[in-house]
Amino acid sequence: MQSFELDKTDILKVKQALEGGDQDLLLLLADYHASEIAILFESISLESQKKIINLLPIDLASEIISEMSHEAHPEELLIDLEPEKRQEIVEELDYDDATDIISQMDEQDQHDILQELDKEDAVNIRNLMTYAEDTAGGLMNTEVIKVDADMSKKQAIDQIILQSEEIEEFYTIYVVDHDDILKGIVSLKDIIKAKANAKIADIVNTEFVFVKTSTDQEEVADLISQYNLTSIPVVDLNMKLLGRVTFDDVIDVMQEENTEDILKFSGVSEDEELSGNWIEAVKSRLPWLILNLGTAFLASSVIRYFEPTVTKIVVLAGYMTIIAGMGGNAATQALAVTVRRITLSDLTDNQAYKTVLKELTVGLINGAVNGLIVFLFAYFYDDNLLLGLVIFIAMTGNLLIAGITGAGIPLILKRVGIDPAVASSIIITTFTDVFGFLLLLGLASKLLL
Amino acid sequence: MQSFELDKTDILKVKQALEGGDQDLLLLLADYHASEIAILFESISLESQKKIINLLPIDLASEIISEMSHEAHPEELLIDLEPEKRQEIVEELDYDDATDIISQMDEQDQHDILQELDKEDAVNIRNLMTYAEDTAGGLMNTEVIKVDADMSKKQAIDQIILQSEEIEEFYTIYVVDHDDILKGIVSLKDIIKAKANAKIADIVNTEFVFVKTSTDQEEVADLISQYNLTSIPVVDLNMKLLGRVTFDDVIDVMQEENTEDILKFSGVSEDEELSGNWIEAVKSRLPWLILNLGTAFLASSVIRYFEPTVTKIVVLAGYMTIIAGMGGNAATQALAVTVRRITLSDLTDNQAYKTVLKELTVGLINGAVNGLIVFLFAYFYDDNLLLGLVIFIAMTGNLLIAGITGAGIPLILKRVGIDPAVASSIIITTFTDVFGFLLLLGLASKLLL
Repeated sequence: MQSFELDKTDILKVKQALEGGDQDLLLLLADYHASEIAILFESISLESQKKIINLLPIDLASEIISEMSHEAHPEELLIDLEPEKRQEIVEELDYDDATDIISQMDEQDQHDILQELDKEDAVNIRNLMTYAEDTAGGLMNTEVIKVDADMSKKQAIDQIILQSEEIEEFYTIYVVDHDDILKGIVSLKDIIKAKANAKIADIVNTEFVFVKTSTDQEEVADLISQYNLTSIPVVDLNMKLLGRVTFDDVIDVMQEENTEDILKFSGVSEDEELSGNWIEAVKSRLPWLILNLGTAFLASSVIRYFEPTVTKIVVLAGYMTIIAGMGGNAATQALAVTVRRITLSDLTDNQAYKTVLKELTVGLINGAVNGLIVFLFAYFYDDNLLLGLVIFIAMTGNLLIAGITGAGIPLILKRVGIDPAVASSIIITTFTDVFGFLLLLGLASKLLL
Repeated sequence: MQSFELDKTDILKVKQALEGGDQDLLLLLADYHASEIAILFESISLESQKKIINLLPIDLASEIISEMSHEAHPEELLIDLEPEKRQEIVEELDYDDATDIISQMDEQDQHDILQELDKEDAVNIRNLMTYAEDTAGGLMNTEVIKVDADMSKKQAIDQIILQSEEIEEFYTIYVVDHDDILKGIVSLKDIIKAKANAKIADIVNTEFVFVKTSTDQEEVADLISQYNLTSIPVVDLNMKLLGRVTFDDVIDVMQEENTEDILKFSGVSEDEELSGNWIEAVKSRLPWLILNLGTAFLASSVIRYFEPTVTKIVVLAGYMTIIAGMGGNAATQALAVTVRRITLSDLTDNQAYKTVLKELTVGLINGAVNGLIVFLFAYFYDDNLLLGLVIFIAMTGNLLIAGITGAGIPLILKRVGIDPAVASSIIITTFTDVFGFLLLLGLASKLLL
């Protein structure tokens, strides 16, 4: 298979083939990997998706559906299929994928679809549906390869070959006792390399990392990333093995979390779908904008308070927007660096203190440099030394505050247990607006009138 | 091993043990995984790091050094060690890790350290150093498990056991011909399951994804994520196997790219180290702030132009900041959603068109709702219907423009081949500032004077 990216030609070719006969379509689709067809599905109608799914063998059809992104709504496609086809596809899906997709349906559809399945599958999926979506329980797959600690090398290999009929990809073999209590892990390589008369208990690795069903998905991702694991076992309170989370689930989680971080940072609800319609977007963003409107009224009340000053020195109106805008941008810079740093690792008190001190220094220097530029403009263009001085002080002071709040507020939020990303630029710029106006107009009132 | 997070107690315990005898320190460190000690290193001095590295066995010491983050500067620790210790550690490191660390040193140190190594290692590392850091060549490890296509099952298993003495973790076995030309991949499981008299050629999977040394690391990450691969082979133009990139490298790349995205988005140079000092931070951010100062002057020149209007209707000064601020925030929202969407997948022309149309609609609605609130305030508080009307139109118009530019500018940049994340909020808010002031003050001049 070539390593290539899908482009418009691919979409065009598929659309043309959809107009033609089934044989042409099958021939064309044979060139694509399931994950590529899943991407192509985003550009074709539900009818066309159905046609393709009905045409392909069950294993490929179910793989495509499992690879479809959340936003492409595989659940809608599934609901739209004939009951028999749907049943076959769901039974072919891994339990975790089936659960993800079925969870997106409304209750009636969920009920109908689970009715169609055989009892064991339905029980397993119902079970997985009880875990919160963003926990290890919600991410895990219940199908694992496991061997008994007291098996011989030969017995274990036979077991693994048998179990791997069902489970295509496995990276780690879990070692359990008769009650499914997790005792350790072992790799296929270790088993192969073991002496012929070795028992699994002789080669098991009993130092391993595990998570509980309730472990937050971000922590699961951190552990997989920190220990370079291909998979991590999920256990209950008695260490009974329930399933595993694999690295590819974690890669998806990381992309999702990073999208959420950027959205939250920009004052967008973290669950707005990137390709959602305008109704969703308005619902997601309007509350933040109205909150911002409230804070903007606060900033503008400072200006109202100093209206007599602005009337007398109207040139201040132009400088106001410069001071406030620069403060907002400097605060956003400090905020981005600090929030990202907190996301990647916890800071000790000492590190937190040093971070605020650093941002204070940066704010002071950047404020002084920019303040100097604006001072020179005021001095030469407006021919007013004292005005220049007032602006210099306001700029420096505002960027100093920007640094302190940009670093300090997310650090404080983190310490009191609030997600620091909530300190979006929307909130933080209120500080710099209010403080910038206060400093500029207050100083101007004292010194220039 | 427990799944736990490091906290202050751990750092304190290590610091105390550092004061005490070597035996206590060793005993304490035995409780930690190499990747945990690497994290603890971020909180202790270079001297203490050296003491620990000198105390530990070479394999653990080198694992710690390979796990240290870029920002903890493992190269400084390495340079500081005794030459013999250093040589042992570097020889124990995987070539890709050794290359990463040595690349961070200045030329003299690089030369010295490569001199100390045996010839084969030095050649391999020098070779890897020729690849750009952010390509598959720069990420890859040259140590792979490979078997010959015409080997028997038994020969292949013996080969794998032999090669796996050197390579601890492998997920895929590469099948090559006598000239190391990559023919396909096979898993250990497939080999075990094969009939006793099977040849590798009978079970090799010849449909596989690969990359070239020059492939950008983001594309490598996309492929690994899209096809759920544990590793991807790196080949030269003749399909000769050069190495592999593993999923854990890709997880690191993704974290790095996401940090860069958030920083660029906030007007911070993408290569500012999150834990860097204030000098680096000033260098990284000052240019953006000065650029912003230029655009702020542009916005303020609009205000200057309308100074006579502001003098006569001074209450406009307060509303100005509300209109401009809201426009900036709405633009940031549209920008974040659009940039993130472009990052995750390319948009077709039709999707791009629909995105702009959606953001235009969202801007119109959010603008009208917020405009109405401000209208009511102006009508009841300032007792001025016409002023309220002017503000309503300015708010709606400005949020409309915010939607169009927030979505349109990154889409255009992407199409002309410029990184859309460059359209940071700093740039985009210039539009909403200028347009907001023009609309508010222009309308006020026409209708209210």
